[in-house]
Order: sequence, then C-alpha cells, then structure tokens
Amino acid sequence: MTFRIEKDTLGDVQVPAGAYYGAQTARAVANFPLSGLRPHPALVRATVVIKKSAARANMTTGRLDPRLGEAIVRAADEALAGDFDPHFVVDPFQAGAGTSHNMNVNEILANRANELLGGERGAYAPVHPNDHVNMAQSTNDVFPTAMRLASLSLVEKLRPGLEGLVAALRGKGREFDAVLKSGRTHLQDAVPIRLGQEFEAWAVAMEKNLAGIDAALPGLRELGIGGTAVGTGMNAEAAYIDLVVAELARETGFPLHRGTNLVERMQNMDPFVALSSALKGLAANLVRIANDLRLLSSGPRTGLAEIALPAIQPGSSIMPGKVNPSMAEATDMVAFQVMGADAVITLAAQAGQLELNVMMPVIAFNLLFSLEILKNTVPRLVQACIAGITADRERCRRYLDQSVGLATVLAPYVGYAAAAEVAKESTATGRSIREIVEERQLLTADKLAEILDPLPLTSPGVPGEKHND
Amino acid sequence: MTFRIEKDTLGDVQVPAGAYYGAQTARAVANFPLSGLRPHPALVRATVVIKKSAARANMTTGRLDPRLGEAIVRAADEALAGDFDPHFVVDPFQAGAGTSHNMNVNEILANRANELLGGERGAYAPVHPNDHVNMAQSTNDVFPTAMRLASLSLVEKLRPGLEGLVAALRGKGREFDAVLKSGRTHLQDAVPIRLGQEFEAWAVAMEKNLAGIDAALPGLRELGIGGTAVGTGMNAEAAYIDLVVAELARETGFPLHRGTNLVERMQNMDPFVALSSALKGLAANLVRIANDLRLLSSGPRTGLAEIALPAIQPGSSIMPGKVNPSMAEATDMVAFQVMGADAVITLAAQAGQLELNVMMPVIAFNLLFSLEILKNTVPRLVQACIAGITADRERCRRYLDQSVGLATVLAPYVGYAAAAEVAKESTATGRSIREIVEERQLLTADKLAEILDPLPLTSPGVPGEKHND
Amino acid sequence: MTFRIEKDTLGDVQVPAGAYYGAQTARAVANFPLSGLRPHPALVRATVVIKKSAARANMTTGRLDPRLGEAIVRAADEALAGDFDPHFVVDPFQAGAGTSHNMNVNEILANRANELLGGERGAYAPVHPNDHVNMAQSTNDVFPTAMRLASLSLVEKLRPGLEGLVAALRGKGREFDAVLKSGRTHLQDAVPIRLGQEFEAWAVAMEKNLAGIDAALPGLRELGIGGTAVGTGMNAEAAYIDLVVAELARETGFPLHRGTNLVERMQNMDPFVALSSALKGLAANLVRIANDLRLLSSGPRTGLAEIALPAIQPGSSIMPGKVNPSMAEATDMVAFQVMGADAVITLAAQAGQLELNVMMPVIAFNLLFSLEILKNTVPRLVQACIAGITADRERCRRYLDQSVGLATVLAPYVGYAAAAEVAKESTATGRSIREIVEERQLLTADKLAEILDPLPLTSPGVPGEKHND
Amino acid sequence: MTFRIEKDTLGDVQVPAGAYYGAQTARAVANFPLSGLRPHPALVRATVVIKKSAARANMTTGRLDPRLGEAIVRAADEALAGDFDPHFVVDPFQAGAGTSHNMNVNEILANRANELLGGERGAYAPVHPNDHVNMAQSTNDVFPTAMRLASLSLVEKLRPGLEGLVAALRGKGREFDAVLKSGRTHLQDAVPIRLGQEFEAWAVAMEKNLAGIDAALPGLRELGIGGTAVGTGMNAEAAYIDLVVAELARETGFPLHRGTNLVERMQNMDPFVALSSALKGLAANLVRIANDLRLLSSGPRTGLAEIALPAIQPGSSIMPGKVNPSMAEATDMVAFQVMGADAVITLAAQAGQLELNVMMPVIAFNLLFSLEILKNTVPRLVQACIAGITADRERCRRYLDQSVGLATVLAPYVGYAAAAEVAKESTATGRSIREIVEERQLLTADKLAEILDPLPLTSPGVPGEKHND
Repeated sequence: MTFRIEKDTLGDVQVPAGAYYGAQTARAVANFPLSGLRPHPALVRATVVIKKSAARANMTTGRLDPRLGEAIVRAADEALAGDFDPHFVVDPFQAGAGTSHNMNVNEILANRANELLGGERGAYAPVHPNDHVNMAQSTNDVFPTAMRLASLSLVEKLRPGLEGLVAALRGKGREFDAVLKSGRTHLQDAVPIRLGQEFEAWAVAMEKNLAGIDAALPGLRELGIGGTAVGTGMNAEAAYIDLVVAELARETGFPLHRGTNLVERMQNMDPFVALSSALKGLAANLVRIANDLRLLSSGPRTGLAEIALPAIQPGSSIMPGKVNPSMAEATDMVAFQVMGADAVITLAAQAGQLELNVMMPVIAFNLLFSLEILKNTVPRLVQACIAGITADRERCRRYLDQSVGLATVLAPYVGYAAAAEVAKESTATGRSIREIVEERQLLTADKLAEILDPLPLTSPGVPGEKHND
Repeated sequence: MTFRIEKDTLGDVQVPAGAYYGAQTARAVANFPLSGLRPHPALVRATVVIKKSAARANMTTGRLDPRLGEAIVRAADEALAGDFDPHFVVDPFQAGAGTSHNMNVNEILANRANELLGGERGAYAPVHPNDHVNMAQSTNDVFPTAMRLASLSLVEKLRPGLEGLVAALRGKGREFDAVLKSGRTHLQDAVPIRLGQEFEAWAVAMEKNLAGIDAALPGLRELGIGGTAVGTGMNAEAAYIDLVVAELARETGFPLHRGTNLVERMQNMDPFVALSSALKGLAANLVRIANDLRLLSSGPRTGLAEIALPAIQPGSSIMPGKVNPSMAEATDMVAFQVMGADAVITLAAQAGQLELNVMMPVIAFNLLFSLEILKNTVPRLVQACIAGITADRERCRRYLDQSVGLATVLAPYVGYAAAAEVAKESTATGRSIREIVEERQLLTADKLAEILDPLPLTSPGVPGEKHND
Repeated sequence: MTFRIEKDTLGDVQVPAGAYYGAQTARAVANFPLSGLRPHPALVRATVVIKKSAARANMTTGRLDPRLGEAIVRAADEALAGDFDPHFVVDPFQAGAGTSHNMNVNEILANRANELLGGERGAYAPVHPNDHVNMAQSTNDVFPTAMRLASLSLVEKLRPGLEGLVAALRGKGREFDAVLKSGRTHLQDAVPIRLGQEFEAWAVAMEKNLAGIDAALPGLRELGIGGTAVGTGMNAEAAYIDLVVAELARETGFPLHRGTNLVERMQNMDPFVALSSALKGLAANLVRIANDLRLLSSGPRTGLAEIALPAIQPGSSIMPGKVNPSMAEATDMVAFQVMGADAVITLAAQAGQLELNVMMPVIAFNLLFSLEILKNTVPRLVQACIAGITADRERCRRYLDQSVGLATVLAPYVGYAAAAEVAKESTATGRSIREIVEERQLLTADKLAEILDPLPLTSPGVPGEKHND
Repeated sequence: MTFRIEKDTLGDVQVPAGAYYGAQTARAVANFPLSGLRPHPALVRATVVIKKSAARANMTTGRLDPRLGEAIVRAADEALAGDFDPHFVVDPFQAGAGTSHNMNVNEILANRANELLGGERGAYAPVHPNDHVNMAQSTNDVFPTAMRLASLSLVEKLRPGLEGLVAALRGKGREFDAVLKSGRTHLQDAVPIRLGQEFEAWAVAMEKNLAGIDAALPGLRELGIGGTAVGTGMNAEAAYIDLVVAELARETGFPLHRGTNLVERMQNMDPFVALSSALKGLAANLVRIANDLRLLSSGPRTGLAEIALPAIQPGSSIMPGKVNPSMAEATDMVAFQVMGADAVITLAAQAGQLELNVMMPVIAFNLLFSLEILKNTVPRLVQACIAGITADRERCRRYLDQSVGLATVLAPYVGYAAAAEVAKESTATGRSIREIVEERQLLTADKLAEILDPLPLTSPGVPGEKHND
C-alpha cells in the first residue's frame, strides 16, 4: 500500500494514498481497531446530510463562500449516493463523543470537494474539513443530531414490518376465530378461549408496542444542532441554527424542530433511552409471542400441537425429518439482543458528565443495531412463520372438552367449594367435568348442556344466565 | 399462639385465632417465607378498592345480595382506613400471578363482612371470599388492575417531588445565571458557559423525564378488570364490567376506562414495562445530575469546588470535619436500584405464557419499590442538596480565564490549525490564551478584547461578529 | 416522644430520649427516609463483630484503655445477642460508603459501654464513638469488611439448602431412572431419554452452581480492614491490623486473612460482583429448572403432564380445584430478583472513584437481599415441590413410542435422507415410526425390534451395534 | 449469479454455483438476513476442528471409511487455513441451537471432501454432510463444544493483553511511588496517598480479574461432545467419545476432558454465564480505572490535572488544540458493551428448555464479541494510554499540603471533635491545617512537623507514634 503524508495538530500521519479520508481518520483507524465493525450506514447518511444542510445554511448566512459550499454540497450528494462507502472506516468503538466519526465525514467531504474544485486529496484547501465542512458545528452537536436522524430513519423502516405483523396476527385472529380451545393459566387447564382471541390479543399488544415507539419519537425530532461545543451555540449564528434545522427537515422529510434548550439537547441522552426502552418493550412482547408460538406448536407428538408453524428448513443435523420453530427462536434471540442493548444504553446514558456525554458512540451502535435487527426480523417472522400457521381444530376442541378448568362454570351455581370437589375428582380420575356433574346430578341435563356450550364461555357473561347482553 | 382450624379445597389449615385472614393466606404464609417483606400499602389499597367497586357493581347488576354487598363495602372502607394493616401478610415473593395476595384480601373482607353481619371469623358465611368478595373476578384480572391503580397512585405522589426538583433546579439556574465558568467536555477545558445554564439544562431534563412518565400512564388507565380468568370475561356480565370500571374511576379519581381487548390487558405487561422504563430514564438522568453535583462540589481543596453542597451530616468516622455529598450519593444508589428493578421487570414481562403472566408479583414488587424510593428521594434531594447549593463565582471565573478552550474563539479568525498552535502552547506553558495571542499579535488588542468578552460567548453567535442574531 | 439534645460537628441534634444511637444516626434517619427498610441483620452483626474485634486488637496493642475496651466488648456481645436490634435504624439507602451505618453502630456501642461504666446515653465519655469504638478504623475499611463477613455468613446459610436441592434432585433422578420418555429439543420430538437422567442433569447443574459460589469466596475472605480512610492504613498500627484480622477469624470461624494490598481491598468491589455473578448463574439455572418443572407438569389435561407437582395451595380465586406450580413460580420470581440485583451491583461497582466506592450500601443491600431470598427459597423449593414430585410412567412411555424423533435410530442404517422420509410420513399421518418402517420393510423385524428397544437408546452407542462400549 | 439446484428434506433449493456450502446453508441465508454479520472466525475454526477430530475418531472406531475420513480431514485442514472463509455465511442470528451454523460447516467440508475425491459440489456422495461429516454428532453437542473451544481460544488471546496491563500499571506504580498526593474519598479531600499506590492498586485489581477469568475456565474445558441429540450419546459409541475428546485436546492444546454428565453439559449454559460474568467483572473495574484516569487527567486548566495522558489524536472538530482521554473513553464504551452482553447471555441462559438451550447462538455471539473487543482494547489501553502517562508531582504535592483531610492526623492527639473544629476552620477560611494548628498551638511545632511528615502517612501507623510496625 502506498501512502501520502498528512499533518494534523499532533504531527505527521500516513494516510493510504487512495483514501478520501485524512489524517484524523487514519489516526482513529490506528487507535481503535477494537471491534472490526464499520459505522451503520444510517449514521453515515445522517452525518452527511447534516454537513450538506450546514453548508447550505452557512451559504445563506453568507459565512461560507458559495464556491466552497456548493462543492461541499456536491460531495455530500455523492456520499449519499454511496460513492465513498468504503471510506467510512472508523470503528463504532472509538473516541468519546464520536469525534473520529465526525472527522471521517469532514475529511471525506473536504477532500472530495477540493477534487471537484480541481484540487487534490490531502491538500485541505480551499476547503478545510474543520473550517468549512464543520463550519458552525462541533462533534458535540453533530453526533447526537446524527443519532436522532439515523434512529428516525430506521424507525421508519421498522414501522411497515410492525404494521405487517399486526395485520398478520389480526388476520390469523379472524381465521381462527371459531377455533375453540382450552385457555391455560400457569400452564394449567383454565376456562375456554378461542384461538383467534389469542392471536388478536397479540395483534393488540403489537399495536400498543408500535404506539410506544411512536411515543418515543418527539424527543428525537427536537434537535440540538447549533449548540456546537457545549450547547451554548458559540460559533453558530442564531440565523444559521434555524436555517440548518429547516434544511434538515426538508432533506429528511421528518417534522424536525429546533430544541428549546440546546445545552440540554446535547447532554441529555434520554431520547435514545426512551426509544431503546420502547424497543425493549417490543422485544419483551416478541419473546412472549414467539414463546407462545413455540409452545402451542410443540410436538408433533410429544407437545401441545394446537398449531403448526411452517417448515422453513430441516431442523436437525442428526434427527431426520425434524422441523423446528426456527423463525420464532431467531426472534427470541434478536429480542434478547435488544434487551441487552438497552442495558448498554442505560449504562452509557447515566455516564454523561457536565456538558457532554462522551459515551454517545456506544449508544448509537446499540440503538442502531437494535433497530437494524428488529427491522429485518419482524417481516421475516411474518413471512416465515405467522403467515403460514395452521390450526388443529380437533385437537384444540379435545383439549377444551377435557379441561378441568370447565369446573369454573359450575361455581355460580354450586359455589366455589362444591365445584372444586368436581375438579378434584376429574383430575384424579381423568374423567371429564361433564361426566362427573352428570353422575352427581348437580345440575339438570339441560342446564349442564347450556352452561357447557363452549362458544358463549369465551365472551363476558355468567354461563347460563340469559341477561348477559 | 392459639389457632382456629379452617378448611379449604386441599384440607385443614391452622389459622391464628385473631387473624382476619383465612386458610389460603395461612397456607401462603407457610409456603412463602421468602423475603420477610409485606405487600406495598398502595397495592393493598388498590386491591381493596377493587373489591369495594366490584361489590357495588355486583349489587347494581343484581347478582350480589345487597345485605352481603354492603357488608363487603363497609369492610373495605375499614380496610382502607388501615384497620386491618397487620393482616395483609403475604410475602411479595409468592405464588404466581398473586393468587395469595388476592385471597388475602378476599378472606379479610369476607371475615370482617361476616362479623359485621353478626357472624364470626372463619365461618365464610353468609359472605364467602370466593363466591362473594371475589364475585365476577379472578386474580388474573384483579391483580394487574391493582398494579395499575397502585402505580398510578404512587406516580401522583412522585409528581410533586419532580415538579419541585424542576423548580429548584430552575431557581438555581436563575440564581447562577451570571456565573461565568469554563465548560468542560470529556472533562477537558472547553468553551465558556454560565453555571445557570447548567442548572437550567438539568431542569429541562427533569421536565422531559416527567413528561416521559406521563406518556407511560395511558396504558395504566386502560383496565382489564372484567376479563376474569383468561380475559374473555367468563363469569363477569358485560354490564358489570362497565360498572366496575366506573366505580374505580370514581373511587380513585383517575381517568380510567375499560380495555378494548381484555385478553390483551391481562397478559400484556407492557404498561408496567413502559412505566418502569420511564423511571429508568429518570434514574439515568438523576445519576448524571447527582454525579455532576458531586464533581462540581469536589474539594474543598483537591477538587473543582465550583459549587458547595449543604452539609447535612458529618462525612467520616475517621476524618474530622469531612463533609460529603451524601444526598447526591444516596440519589445515585436509589437510581441504580431503579435500573435494576427495570431489569427484573423486563425479565418478568418476557416470561408471560399464553393467557397469563404469572410473574406479576415480582413486577409489582419492583415497580412499586422504584416508585416508593423515588418519591421519597427526589424531595430530599431538593431539600437537603439542591436548595442549599452555593457557587464560588471567583473560582468559576478563574477557570474560565485560564481555560485552553478559549482558543476556539480564534478559529473563525485564524483558522482551526493556527488556533490549535496557540492552544498547544498554552497547554505546554501554562500561559493563558489571551497572553499568547497578544504576544503573537494574531489579532488586534481591540479585536481580542471583543472576542474574549465572555458573556457573549455563552450564546449563539460567532464571537466578534456584529450580525449575530 | 421525648428527646435529648446531642451535639456533633455540625451542631445540635434531637435524639429520641430512649435511643442507644446518637446524633449522627438521628441525622441519618432524618436525611434518608428513602425505602423504609432496616439494615440486614447479618450486616449489623458483622459490623458489631468488627467493633468487638477492633477493641480487642486495640487493647492488645496498648492503644485502648482496657477499662473502655472491655466495656465496648461487653456492649458488642449484648448487641450480638440482639439487645439493640430496634436501634439499628439507618435506611439501607443512605449516605455514600455507609458512614451512617458505621456511626449507628459506633454510637450504640459507645452509649451502651458508657452505661456499663456507670455513665449515661448521650455523654460519649469516657467511651467516644469515633475515638474509641471506631479506633483505628474508618467507615471505608469497616463497611466493605462487614459486607464480606455478612456475605460469608449468608452463603453458609444458603449452602445446606443447595446441598439439599442437589440431593433431592439426585434422589428423584434415581427414583425415575427407569422412566423412559421422549426427549424434546426445540420443544419438538427428539430421541429417548429417561426422566431420571433429566433430574440427575439438574442435580449436576446445581452442584456446579454451588461450586461456582464457592469459587467466589476467596475474595471475600481477604480483608481490607486496617486500611482505614484510603487503604494506606493511616491511624492503624501494623500490629493492630494483623490482630484484628485474627480476632475476626476467631469470632466468625471463617478462614480470613489480611489483604495483600489494602488500598485495592477497599476500593475494588469485584469480590461482591463475583459472588453476585455466581448467584446470578445459580438463578439462571433455577429459572431453567423451575420452568422445566412447570412445563413437564403442565395439565392436568391440556399439558404435557409427565410429572405432577405436589399441591401446596388452591391455585385460583375463580377456577375451583385448580392447582398451580406455585413454588416453582415463586422460584422464578426470586431468581429474576437476583438477576436484577446483579445489574444493580454491576452499576454500583463500576461507579467507584479513586480511593473509595461510595456505592457500597446499595451493593450490600442487593447482595444480602439476593442471599436472603435464595437461602429461604431453595429449601422451600425442595420441601414444597421437588420432594413430592411424582411421574406418570405410562404417559411418558406413550410419548416415547409416538415420538417422531425415533426416526433418528434409522439413520445409521438407511441414511439421513431416507430416515427423514419416514419421519415426514409419520408427522403427516400420525402413524408411528415403527409402523412405517415395518410397512416399508426398510429393516427386518428383528433389526427393527433391536434398534427400537428404548433403554439402550438412552446411553451412548449406535442402536443395534454390538460393540458399543 | 448462476445457481445449482440442490435438494434437502424439504425440497429443492437454489445454491450459488460456486458455493462450497449447500442447500441448508442457502435456506439459512434466505431465512435469516437479520444482522448482516458473519460468524466469529474463532467459532468457525472451533467447529471445523470438531469435524476433523470426529472424523479421526470415527475412523479409529472403524465406523467411517478411511477414504472418506481422510478427505474430510484434508478439507478441514484447508478450512483451517482459511480457504473457505467466504463460504461461512450464516448470520449469527439464526435458527435455534445453531443448526444452520453446523450444517454450513458440514456442507462445506462434504463438498470439498467430495471434490478431493474427484466428485463435485452439490453431489454429497460419497461424502454426505449428515451421514459422514456429522457422524456421531448433533448440532446439540457440536455447537456448545465449539462455543467452549472458541471461548478458550479467545481467552488465550486476551490473556497477554491483561498481563501487559497489569505490568504497565505496576510499572507506573513504581515510577510514581514517590509522588505524594492527597487521597480523595467521596471526591472530597482525604488523607495522603502516593500516586504509585493508586496505580499498584489498579494492577492488583486487574490481576484479580484475570484470576477470575481463569476461575471460569474449568467449565469450558469439560466437554459435552458425544452427547449427540439430547446428551444421552445415542448414535455415538462410547469409544468414539473418548477418542474425539482426546483428538480435540491434541488439536487445540487445551486440557480438555469428557464431561461427567453429557446431558448436563449440553443444556447447562452456566460455563458461558460464568465466563461472561468474569468478563463483566473485569469490565466494571476497567470502567473504574478508565474513569479515574479521565478524572485525574482532567484539565489542563479546569480539572485535577495530576496526571497527563498521551495525546493520541486531536480531540475536537471545533475546539483547536483540545486533547481528550480518548483511549480511556473507548475503554469505557467497550466495557459497557461487555456488561450488556452479559445481560443478553443471562437472558438466553435462563431460557433453556428441557434437553436443549436453543438460544446458544446469541450466547455465542455476545460472548465472543465481548472477548473480541476486550482482547483488542486492553493492549491499546496500555499502548495508547497507560504507558505514556506522566505525573505532575508539584501539583500533586500542592493538593496534599492544602488538603483538609490532614486534620485526620490530629485526631489521635486532640480527639475527633477538636480535630473537626480545625477542619471546619480550614474549609471556611482556605487556610491550611498546618497553619491553623500552629496558630491554635494545639501541638508543639516539633510534634506537628513530625505528624505532618507526609510519607509516613501513606503507610500503616499512628502518625507520630514510634512503635508503628
């Protein structure tokens, strides 16, 4: 590899000859070979959009020479088209606050802008990464703003998946609306429910988690850009601040607005904690649903086998013909990862000090990773699992008929204690509640038939009472 | 101790002679001597309120004999007055779903109602704990509803504390608005800021955390009561469901409403995850603020000593005269506890299975404990710490004048690279930025004086530029 | 309530007239009404033992007047007998580092020692809480030492429970050694296993967790006492340090020794992190085992019902006769709490600064709470669950015979692909592997009988091969 | 892209024409495009080593045709040389238990072995991925064994870094042994300590964390290989089990041995929990040390500035000449990630069910990621931070002389209360303890000089007492 020599405030640095990035990025690459990973593309895009918007705002205020500014804008557009993707090389685990990430973008855009203006890489004139690309900015306001924009963009990509999941669960809810089964609480026989009600309840849960995510977005839309180094806005004119926010809103299409307190916007990581928490809440319900699917589809012979999940791949290297609930299992693992990410984000959020939280890069890494794997997993859960679920109606009904939980219907008629006696006999003997009640003549045959009619048992009302609306 | 013998569906049970509770509670006491703790009073109250409201609703629908119903209501009122506090004895770590807690309440109210009707404890007639006190209810809908009501009531007690904290921080923000100091990022010299801006930023952060808590409340106000055993409402008439919700709203004063899907309301713990997450977000910022207070008040000689916290107790058993930031430290510990509680709640929420999440008691324990310690700690933080903070203006100003971060004001005039040279010399020699610039004659004396005038540096604008906002 | 007025370095303080504690404790009570809880008795005992041992060591070195020292020792013995239990009143959430806890003990012992010497409470002469009871000590070395001793004492109380759990599981392993059943992986039919093997595997897991706990103890036995305020030992003679450690070893019976680096011993919370981690590992396996018990005992009609857990209390307020796996559920909840405690402890451990970790009280609270609930729960799990488990041998065998996992035995003879065809047909038709192989004449009847003989399938070896070990 | 068509038990699958992997891998690629990541190389290597060792063991027992076996061994050696790296394509977030990962390796080795035997990719004859490469194995015993081997190999790579860190800290401890400074507890002035003692204490802490990691290794060395599908060893001859373990020990150089209970070895994730916990403990101390370094080096003007960290890159995009503690900050972030990984691993470990824990892939991902980033970060922390630390001796000494903590030396002579008065005056007036004592004539000048001689104050002993050790 050939190198060019660049100079920064600490001295000479070798930079790969073909690199669009420069000295500070090269230092970061050498300093932080920690995870081997690259920045999330959404974070790169968001940072480039900020540079583009800032250049425009700075041209409008008259502070940035339009010749230089337009070159920066063009370079940014090329970056957004993906032209420099291999040059965003700073490890997510890096210098505090993401200075290296910000400088990586500043250097690429400066080098490219200078090329566009006839210069060459490494010259940093006429366009300088700090003086022009980073004009009126600091890592400290750029990075959290980029985190906000990147998060918002990934939420938008997660949204259709979640809407699809709600729709798929609701669709199955309708499809299985007439499938009567025994409910189970504590994994023990309980009163009847319809399989469709179970799916609909999951659909509602997912709707609420999506609403929870939406409730976390306002804090992401209130930007701290313009606060510069400590949030006070030094080196950023008031006019610029409004302009750059307006540019960002236009570029991204998000309803962004300027923070009411830029000092707070910079140091307070709560918007990211809030979004991560909402994702964690979603994850907890995904685990619950995935585990219920795994349990209800357990079998084919030694489990509950009320439903069957589609076979998406052979399930065992040693057991021929085995099919596993693989997509549900992968969902569990993704959800656990999201929960762990939330733990990291909480740790990092509480570690802020004074004007800045230098732990932002690890917050960004985990939040964007959570969003990434969720946005990829949710649609696969729909396509490769939910959509293909079938129900074993006979088996479900058989469970219902045998359930000791049916003794509950007797209680309003014979009292809790007497009903419990029936249940105990059923458990001990294996005979059904119906049989025992008949034998003991606790109720007339008509009454028994009426109150054991299963469908009404799955809606509000005292079994056998006429006035249940 | 003398005992009476009671009987439940599993056989005879010894119950302390004077106990208002009965057989199932006694079993739970014997089964679960796990933590030695008692239920949170707010959970007890909430459960009693549900019993009272259910009795009224059941009387209105005509299902519950008014003589029995009124006795239950009276017993509940006595319980709410605290008359039976020593009888709520079930350990928070207990049977899944809180059956033992629910039966503890059912038994106390049944025994007391029977007493009021001239009977005695242990008879369970005419009022039966399951058939009458628990009428149209199941632990499975009562317990999560009680968790909701208890959480709402504690949030109301936390709220004034948080409002007071916002006010106290904002007040200090005003008081210290003219205290110029050096900002610090990465704990390193940065550009100027006013001490008041720091306090105001914390005030805004706390406001946003309070808003985050409020955003978590709607899910707590949507009740699943009426869903009974599996959420389908079996044994609960539709009319009852609306009535009991209305009674609860009236009793508590909260804007409660009936869940749109009672199956979901029962099994989905997300409302508790959401509130806990909001508390965790608050906790993360409390740590941050408490740690900043500890750092800024470090000293008196070997620390930053920009502010002084009030002395609330001697700080050392060995070092005479030592005063520590004890209230801030206690706040940190409380906040860590809240974060750990959130981890437990997440674990428990994801462990739900099918129609029920049997882990509800450990969710309740942790959520209510978080609320309890926060509601107690936040006002103490205000009274014993924030309210008494004083600033050392001279010291703050001295830091500002010496800060190497002042080199930033040069950048718009001499460029980033040249300004960095000044900063390096300052760091190496200990001389101030001002001195070096003067010596190097980088700027005219007038210009230098203008751009180093500190107050304007703490607001948006390029130092020395006239057209700033 | 009547009060006496005491004076500390900050001024006058009202102390309840009858209190053995004094001014600093009274301040702490007023400052920290945060959780309403009291210190764990094991922490109180440990702190008192340290005071007693220090008094003896200080008498031996000649620094402490024996008249005063013996009075302190007598007061300590009374405290260990529980005489002052109501006077240990400082909330676990308190001043950083536990200064208030330490002073609570110092004050009680000083007041009592003075009483024994004919003086009265509140006089602090001739015995002074700081100068004599706390002689050669600092909260900073006393508190972590007390945490160590308290942890060690609770581990000793947890140990027999865990050994009992291992024995109970192993006993059931032997009892169920001949119960053939189908294994399940991914909750899907797998190859045969014996129920006894499952219980024995859990026994081994518990043995290993106990070994993991033991592996965490050395760090608790290496004491930092004698380091005083910052670990350097100022105000503590070298001779004293060896003496106090020897006294502590004698008093507690633990193999304690002096830390090789007292600075490290004081500030490094890793021994507590390590023990908490070991408890968390135990908790993870307890959840796994409890959940497996809940799953295998699911039913009675709508679940797997391979085993039955003893009924310890009625399981539902609405569903008569319902019996739940309550003890296993409580175990889950306790285990989740332990995991959350570990999260708190990690947070607190990483928050140490320079010479001290002021977050020690919240570490102590969580670690001792984890130990407390585990030591109480594990024996209950044995008594109220494991010991009474029964197996349904017929049902287990029926699952084995029907399991599609049996196709695995064919693979060595017909290959994975052909065996998979058999499995698929079995799944689709509900017919057994045996039937299909017979029909397809894939193997001779003799061979089939040989390789489907279930018992050999539960040990190493290729089914039907003679040379298996 | 051109494809070949392969067939598995579920039907036809398109496989890229040039792929060494086959149908099941292609299905996994299509099913799980979840994170975009590839398996950790150490996990790939470990799995290949298992395949090679199993082939050898199976040849020795006579079950595997040596012609086929040798081809598998050759293919494995090529894989270990990195020849097929681009073909290990299964996302870490995949089917439960890692079936897809195992089949990816089986398919590559089968295809390559067949090529070596003159066949072509996709034919699966004479060497079949399940029947021959996977002979006597199941994903269920292969995957946890691979996790063990991969973990052990990465621990070996982490070890020299940690040893280097211990050595570097200890070296600095010696270098700074004479640098007297004020200790700080609660961030407040405390008694004297030497800077070298601080570094040595960190060295000891790191030694103990390394010992903690070593204590977690035995569980990783006890292998479950040979347990096959459910741990019973079906389809694996007893002789094979011993042979494959011996082969693995030989191949890896680790002291591996056969598990005493293969059922337990397969399902119990505690060895991974234990290692992760040890890493979390290390992480907690790394945060503590990194934060102390950041605090002690805070400045250059507005912080403590007792030490200076080497400048490794410019610290700000806006503030010229700023230098941040970047490597310490990166260390914090890495440590937080490790803590979050531990949370994921705990969640996954407790989610095991019956014979298998299907969450193994997410455990592997997080554990190996933790090891990866730690092994990369720790040496960088040494090189780019610790090794270049310098001390400001004068500043340290100045802090010592001014510290109010010096009042502690007076207590043995004038009592705690009188010493506190001196401290209070010092705090209030800014005058030094020495001055005030002199003025008040509390001690003779000689005595005062003797007891304020700082060096002895940093070792055990009562200041001014001759008989100290």
